[in-house]
Amino acid sequence: MAKETAAEPLDVIPTEGESCHTAHHLCMPEDSRKRAARRLAIARGHLESIRRSLEDPNVYCVDVLRQIKAVQGALDGAASVVLRGHLEAHVATAATRGDEKELVEELMDALKYI
Amino acid sequence: MAKETAAEPLDVIPTEGESCHTAHHLCMPEDSRKRAARRLAIARGHLESIRRSLEDPNVYCVDVLRQIKAVQGALDGAASVVLRGHLEAHVATAATRGDEKELVEELMDALKYI
Amino acid sequence: MAKETAAEPLDVIPTEGESCHTAHHLCMPEDSRKRAARRLAIARGHLESIRRSLEDPNVYCVDVLRQIKAVQGALDGAASVVLRGHLEAHVATAATRGDEKELVEELMDALKYI
Amino acid sequence: MAKETAAEPLDVIPTEGESCHTAHHLCMPEDSRKRAARRLAIARGHLESIRRSLEDPNVYCVDVLRQIKAVQGALDGAASVVLRGHLEAHVATAATRGDEKELVEELMDALKYI
Repeated sequence: MAKETAAEPLDVIPTEGESCHTAHHLCMPEDSRKRAARRLAIARGHLESIRRSLEDPNVYCVDVLRQIKAVQGALDGAASVVLRGHLEAHVATAATRGDEKELVEELMDALKYI
Repeated sequence: MAKETAAEPLDVIPTEGESCHTAHHLCMPEDSRKRAARRLAIARGHLESIRRSLEDPNVYCVDVLRQIKAVQGALDGAASVVLRGHLEAHVATAATRGDEKELVEELMDALKYI
Repeated sequence: MAKETAAEPLDVIPTEGESCHTAHHLCMPEDSRKRAARRLAIARGHLESIRRSLEDPNVYCVDVLRQIKAVQGALDGAASVVLRGHLEAHVATAATRGDEKELVEELMDALKYI
Repeated sequence: MAKETAAEPLDVIPTEGESCHTAHHLCMPEDSRKRAARRLAIARGHLESIRRSLEDPNVYCVDVLRQIKAVQGALDGAASVVLRGHLEAHVATAATRGDEKELVEELMDALKYI
């Protein structure tokens, strides 16, 4: 699903700690990428444990609701890491590249509301 | 649905399509449990594919943000299934058992806001 | 806008602290109604002060964003008062009236997600 | 409440359609300011009509919940206008001024989650 970007040819590999700017698109800062991946791995583990808990006929609705809320919080955290990296590496530098219109449009669309 | 919780002490496993009421707590309706589990399994798969996409130095921040939003939507859907089952099987029947104060308190706490 | 229900004829006025059940619909508990009204009055005042602050060319975007978030929080609080009253007075007693299907359906729709 | 910024001395009034940059802070783009003000005025009117509807003992909880949700949506819209103006006028140009660290920090804090 997150494959759209994987297929694009890339000439430049970003060096550690840097974000790159290819002919095709801006790349994610290395640090955000690793931190987001770690958070998503934890959220996935939590999600799997909730799914397993649902095999128990004795599980209680409200406990499941609370666990799902906790995973939502973890995903907010992961999204926050990605957003911060994007703002720092790409949005804050947009005027120097001249793509501010597109970047703001795209970000507003991705955030949808606020 | 009201009758599902009628039997107070319970050492049996609830039969298909019923929710149980044990000495300890109310159990989740079978149907909600299975549907929520299916949705969580799908969300977990999606989450894993996002995590894998982060191994690619070429992945783009905004694509990752969008994917995380999509998983959040899927989790909202799973929570919605659980909430509906809880309202039908437990909250709507609370006055017949006399535990409405606790059930409402607990649900308000789990929903936190709104 | 909140006028849909106001036009309906009503034979019974709920006494203080009670919720009523007319031929047409369930009425809001007196206490929730008054507490929600107070919170909405405060939120409206806050909203008006934000609107006025926007007349100043010197106002800063991020301050406005923070103030809007604060009003959103106040509205969450008002909605929470209304929801709690509804759960206690109407949803928890649904099985005794036999309208649990409609009440749950309606509430899920009003909450939309989660 | 939105007064923190109003008290600050200002020597420069931003000309129409421009955002200004004073010794103290960045100013809101004229256009965002006017559009946000209009939306807040509408939301305030809606809020007042909900508050008035609560004087009717016959008002129904779920209708009030729906109306509050609608105002929340309107406030999301107003916040969206402010955010877009901020991203375009201040964040996208941060690298040219050199205040990107503070601007991103401040925005992440204002958005809190995501």
